[in-house]
Amino acid sequence: MSTLFRHFRIHQVFGANTDVGKTILTTALASASAQRGNQTFYLKPVSTGPLEDADDHHVNRYTSKFKHSIHAECLFRYDEPVSPHLAVKLKAAANGDTEAISPSDATVVDAIANRILMHANSTSKPAHMYMETAGGVHSPALSGSSQADCYRPLFLPTILIGDSKLGGISSTISSYESLLLRGYIIDVVLLFRDNYYRNADYLKPYFADRGIYVATVDPPPPRLLDPSENFKVTDKYYASITAPTAENPEDTLQNVIAHLDSCHSKRLQELDSMPKRAYDNIWWPFVQHGLVKGEQDVTVIDSAYSDFFSITNKTGFKDTSGKQSLLEPQFDGSSSWWTQTVGHAHPSLTMAAARASGRYGHVMFPQAVHLPALKLAERLIHDGPGKGWADRAFISDNGSTGMEVALKMALRAYTLRHPELNNEDKKQLGILGLKGSYHGDTIGAMDACEEGVYTCEWHDAKGYWLDPPTVGIKNGEISITVPASLSSFPEAKEVKAASLSWVYEVENRLRTPLAQAYALYIQRALDSLEKRGGPKLAALVIEPILMGAGGMLFVDPLFQRVLVDTVRGRRSGSSSTWSGLPVIFDEVFVGLHRVSVESSGPILGVYPDISVNAKVLTGGLLPLAVTLASKSIFEAFLADNKADALLHGHSYTAHPIGCEVANETLSILDKLKESDDWKAAQASWAKPDGEKSPVWSLWDPNFVMEISKLPQVRETMTLGTVLAIKIKDDSAGYTSNSAQSALRSLLDASEAEGVLSSAPGGAPFGIHYRTLGDVAYFMTSLNTSSKVIRSIEDKLWKTLAGS
Amino acid sequence: MSTLFRHFRIHQVFGANTDVGKTILTTALASASAQRGNQTFYLKPVSTGPLEDADDHHVNRYTSKFKHSIHAECLFRYDEPVSPHLAVKLKAAANGDTEAISPSDATVVDAIANRILMHANSTSKPAHMYMETAGGVHSPALSGSSQADCYRPLFLPTILIGDSKLGGISSTISSYESLLLRGYIIDVVLLFRDNYYRNADYLKPYFADRGIYVATVDPPPPRLLDPSENFKVTDKYYASITAPTAENPEDTLQNVIAHLDSCHSKRLQELDSMPKRAYDNIWWPFVQHGLVKGEQDVTVIDSAYSDFFSITNKTGFKDTSGKQSLLEPQFDGSSSWWTQTVGHAHPSLTMAAARASGRYGHVMFPQAVHLPALKLAERLIHDGPGKGWADRAFISDNGSTGMEVALKMALRAYTLRHPELNNEDKKQLGILGLKGSYHGDTIGAMDACEEGVYTCEWHDAKGYWLDPPTVGIKNGEISITVPASLSSFPEAKEVKAASLSWVYEVENRLRTPLAQAYALYIQRALDSLEKRGGPKLAALVIEPILMGAGGMLFVDPLFQRVLVDTVRGRRSGSSSTWSGLPVIFDEVFVGLHRVSVESSGPILGVYPDISVNAKVLTGGLLPLAVTLASKSIFEAFLADNKADALLHGHSYTAHPIGCEVANETLSILDKLKESDDWKAAQASWAKPDGEKSPVWSLWDPNFVMEISKLPQVRETMTLGTVLAIKIKDDSAGYTSNSAQSALRSLLDASEAEGVLSSAPGGAPFGIHYRTLGDVAYFMTSLNTSSKVIRSIEDKLWKTLAGS
Repeated sequence: MSTLFRHFRIHQVFGANTDVGKTILTTALASASAQRGNQTFYLKPVSTGPLEDADDHHVNRYTSKFKHSIHAECLFRYDEPVSPHLAVKLKAAANGDTEAISPSDATVVDAIANRILMHANSTSKPAHMYMETAGGVHSPALSGSSQADCYRPLFLPTILIGDSKLGGISSTISSYESLLLRGYIIDVVLLFRDNYYRNADYLKPYFADRGIYVATVDPPPPRLLDPSENFKVTDKYYASITAPTAENPEDTLQNVIAHLDSCHSKRLQELDSMPKRAYDNIWWPFVQHGLVKGEQDVTVIDSAYSDFFSITNKTGFKDTSGKQSLLEPQFDGSSSWWTQTVGHAHPSLTMAAARASGRYGHVMFPQAVHLPALKLAERLIHDGPGKGWADRAFISDNGSTGMEVALKMALRAYTLRHPELNNEDKKQLGILGLKGSYHGDTIGAMDACEEGVYTCEWHDAKGYWLDPPTVGIKNGEISITVPASLSSFPEAKEVKAASLSWVYEVENRLRTPLAQAYALYIQRALDSLEKRGGPKLAALVIEPILMGAGGMLFVDPLFQRVLVDTVRGRRSGSSSTWSGLPVIFDEVFVGLHRVSVESSGPILGVYPDISVNAKVLTGGLLPLAVTLASKSIFEAFLADNKADALLHGHSYTAHPIGCEVANETLSILDKLKESDDWKAAQASWAKPDGEKSPVWSLWDPNFVMEISKLPQVRETMTLGTVLAIKIKDDSAGYTSNSAQSALRSLLDASEAEGVLSSAPGGAPFGIHYRTLGDVAYFMTSLNTSSKVIRSIEDKLWKTLAGS
Repeated sequence: MSTLFRHFRIHQVFGANTDVGKTILTTALASASAQRGNQTFYLKPVSTGPLEDADDHHVNRYTSKFKHSIHAECLFRYDEPVSPHLAVKLKAAANGDTEAISPSDATVVDAIANRILMHANSTSKPAHMYMETAGGVHSPALSGSSQADCYRPLFLPTILIGDSKLGGISSTISSYESLLLRGYIIDVVLLFRDNYYRNADYLKPYFADRGIYVATVDPPPPRLLDPSENFKVTDKYYASITAPTAENPEDTLQNVIAHLDSCHSKRLQELDSMPKRAYDNIWWPFVQHGLVKGEQDVTVIDSAYSDFFSITNKTGFKDTSGKQSLLEPQFDGSSSWWTQTVGHAHPSLTMAAARASGRYGHVMFPQAVHLPALKLAERLIHDGPGKGWADRAFISDNGSTGMEVALKMALRAYTLRHPELNNEDKKQLGILGLKGSYHGDTIGAMDACEEGVYTCEWHDAKGYWLDPPTVGIKNGEISITVPASLSSFPEAKEVKAASLSWVYEVENRLRTPLAQAYALYIQRALDSLEKRGGPKLAALVIEPILMGAGGMLFVDPLFQRVLVDTVRGRRSGSSSTWSGLPVIFDEVFVGLHRVSVESSGPILGVYPDISVNAKVLTGGLLPLAVTLASKSIFEAFLADNKADALLHGHSYTAHPIGCEVANETLSILDKLKESDDWKAAQASWAKPDGEKSPVWSLWDPNFVMEISKLPQVRETMTLGTVLAIKIKDDSAGYTSNSAQSALRSLLDASEAEGVLSSAPGGAPFGIHYRTLGDVAYFMTSLNTSSKVIRSIEDKLWKTLAGS
């Protein structure tokens, strides 16, 4: 991800097929580069077949006259002329080593990245490198994954060698599309001229439409039997297609070299110009532009892969020696605002988006159905968070709209049971919630929360919000902190817990004095509210387990359970309908394993009447939300009159891309449940008796405990992918800067001398993190490897413990 | 699009490359089908090369023993063994016909569809058809477009013949991905066994992960020189790979046939089950489920292409003879709720989504930037609707959230200039708008509109709404209708206009008595509002030109111009800041050429301080919105305090897929501006003097005029892609059913006997349409062909005029 240098232009060469002239044209490109005076490198990451036929040898043979400026090498070599993944197995078998493990993609990528760095640092003069892949774009790498996927972390600009034979139009375009599905920048398509099939005549306008230059050169002469004769004619051929003085420069590769140089310059210029252009045109969300001091405060994301952004390195752009990489990896420590699920640019999600787009685009949804939406609804209702209680799925565009839909559902259900309410009463119906709640940025969703820093002029807080007890780790001990408003209840004291599982096995805690104190507190609060006549409550709305935007508050789940029980006990519906108040679980953030459980119902031991899922739902690719509702909620809108329907619906409701990406995400999550990393994490957070805990975390328990003991840390807490660290500060809350300042050095890319980082390619990386006032939080994807998480823990420890 | 029959299973056969055994394996498939007793059809749409080598001849030769049950044919035949697009040119050249036009994709698709229909109707016994394509998936069709694109309207399930040679893993996977990008259903990958390269060993688990069955068969014997010997061994080979009694059925195609039969049955079962499953699980937007009488009221959309859905045909599923197609095309007459821009499943938009997903997935946006978002912001500000006035682009998830952002911007800008307002005042700040306004479904956006049928319990209409005059065509005359509230102004009378251009050349009308009456009416209304003390207005919010959800009301643009002038004249800002009230243009629906103009500023002759674009912005693929703001609005949020920022931002803000699809859409619109269809439409709506009109429509002027004269039509109106028809009814408004009942028969697929429809494949089609009470509207994509629009006009005319 750090493979961009000012002086050192690198291209990877992919072939539209085997036998399309990849080696010949790469040799010629290297030769042409050298003839223009560039220090030139040729790299074959993996070679299969006899040594004497190897591509790097071919390059050496035909560029010997430029030897001082061409360096050709191969990193992994295998004898058998078959696909690399097979060659590595055959070699192992030949050595009698049946247990041999193939080099992983990371090993190959690290080796290439190291080689690139070494060469880039070996010269400060203009240099070119060509990395020639094996076979076609999807020919397997050593590990068996596709080369197009294996090399993706390096994100190298690409030369596609097109196919000039019969059928070559198709294989060239298909290969291009496979590269495009991985986001590669394709600078040129290069192929042999063929006056019979004329593929280039077709491909030139085709690719011109797509902004890609197509170049052709004459095909090589037929192979001669006499080696020395063959060498002579071949050498002459190379001269003819690479010479800078050719009469028609269109016919030689000098033009292509000039084009590639210009693509490289343009890319640098664009990256260099982006901070200012963004600073001048973009209005960022949740950003005080008055505090953005200039373009130096803008992060340019050139691409992203897995858990890392590839960002421009500001010192690199200023470095006049030009040796420094202009890109560096940055760990996406907020999971891109809590969305990342399986890492950036996951090929399966791209494919899901592509196939839905290709089959439907977007199609009308009212009274219609398409497979992606139907499968999603069925999955969520019958085999997901709605299991056991939900009857209907309503699809909208994001968490905020999903919550507005939920509120509209609850308000209608409530008012239908309360015909005494007049229109003015209805406008003022209130939400019962918890202090610190946040349900999205739209004005209606905000009105379900207290007035606070996030609210706008029109904000009209409708409801009543209770002070919740919270769970945290203080000085190495798991503690339940009880708010001051409960201080009049003697049973409501801070509780120390031996394990997280004890806290989250709510059923076991229902008969404790603390549960009774909670019940009494809630009862009295509601009675007193009723007595003083307002606001009339119409729904209970909670973010179960964890309130995110409110400051990563881990609410004592026992409190939320007692709250639901109390609300439902106060007035009853029939056994099959909602009772007391409709209960909404806002699981937009916590749902679908973000905090280790698929949904919070099984933890709390109670289920909502309405729930909302979003964020993880679409795997971190694009927005979509689903509001689930019980049958009795749905039936509140059934009538003969259209005006009584739920008259809410966005134009792109249930867009097939979003639904299909959600379905794919849910399938990937099913596989993740069986992954070794999850099993190891579950084991590390097992109950004291060794049994599986209902909750667990991808973060290491010892790390979380130890860091809570540091002098500047007030408390920590973790569940699932989330780690929260509260930094000591006199002015707590959203406007505090304590967390920002304590952790600022995390942003700097650094690694111990000579140590490969856990980022793809092993380059030093910084950590992007977000704070909520005095709370810094770190969030991984659901499939972030334990290796990466351990390295983040090390960096965090060094930053906070100073060692 | 109507190529699914219960008894007649059809598959198209695509090859991963040329020379992978496509003809051999298709011949074998046909043979295996015939041996199972199926009537079998082999279709080669396009054949190139010598007649005696033609694939259909090969099929006939080797299946002669099944001749009674195999029918092999070719539709378009060319002698030269080159790519079809080239073969057609060479043939024309050989005939001395240099002007020859290649058969279009539509011609080829219609011919195939007809052949399929003919064969399907020729038998009611189980039958199979194999349609063998030429070369690879992207080998050019006769027209020069790719076969994968050309045959897409037929949406046939696919057999992919994999490549068993070196490099074949790559070409097989790339070909698969190209098919997937077009949404094809792939039922099987079939390739030769090769014990050296072992591609199948790799491809089997690869495709199993993707739900696709991979089958292998032995490769054919080497070709013998003696024709009769060669025939004998080849015939024996075919017998060995197709025989139903082979010892190991894994090795013969009988297994594949059984699998394909089962895929076909499952698809039918799934389509058949979908209405009930949807009826049981989905909560539709804007649908009164109490009026959905059962699964028969559910439309199943199997796929979509261009302007048409492919929906299940209910009578087809009930037809016991089984001869009827189970799918039929349906014209998407609401542009899928006003979103469709370039037709469903447009390959360029799929590619845009794919490349952004492959490069970034989604990435964090606050204080960061990526190319797709930056390009979109720059384009909209400097070379789009923001040109000349906008300074900043704020990106959100859909039109409704974009409008909430706009409202938050305006309210803040207003309150900063009015420090006298306390918190309670701020909550009640009002919007000045027009009756019939609609700005999205979220509660805040709804509060900017009057109470009405769409509003929910919390709705609190904040503001004041004026009665707007409207433009319509009544009994063949263009009329401006003045509302009753203007009746006290003698100059405010119904106006007849000679042309639409007269109405929309607002500048020319500024000094008319009507303009003066408008100004006086607005002034007095505002004065009177101020006098009676409320509500305090903080922003002017209009949908310029056309109010959609309010009932397709074409507002007199002069009125909106005078309104903006009046508001801005009442209190002034400096020349570089907003004055009077911040002005918001809600162009979510009308923007970006939906009503023939890119934005409404040039029509009204005034520009907003804030505007919102969505819907067309992303080409009809997925949601995204951009709120543009002027410098003085942006600066209202600049401060040293984070809490003063615009604290709004959705998790997936500026998701790269949405931004890149928007960029692609804007590029396509640029090309559309030069299209023949647009130029012809502009010419048909030219000014009386022949000059270009500022507005125009894709609908035919004579048609729109004539239909307005029909007895049951109250009025019509059109601009751009939109046609509105108001049906006479005593109970007008949203609850009226007059438009629904007058047009119901449009839903029925019908075409005159023997006439090919304008839908892909030429099958009879119905029209999906939406109504808003007594108004029926019809909306095309921006690139719907004049041929399709003329055919819709014919159907409309027949329905309404009854002839």
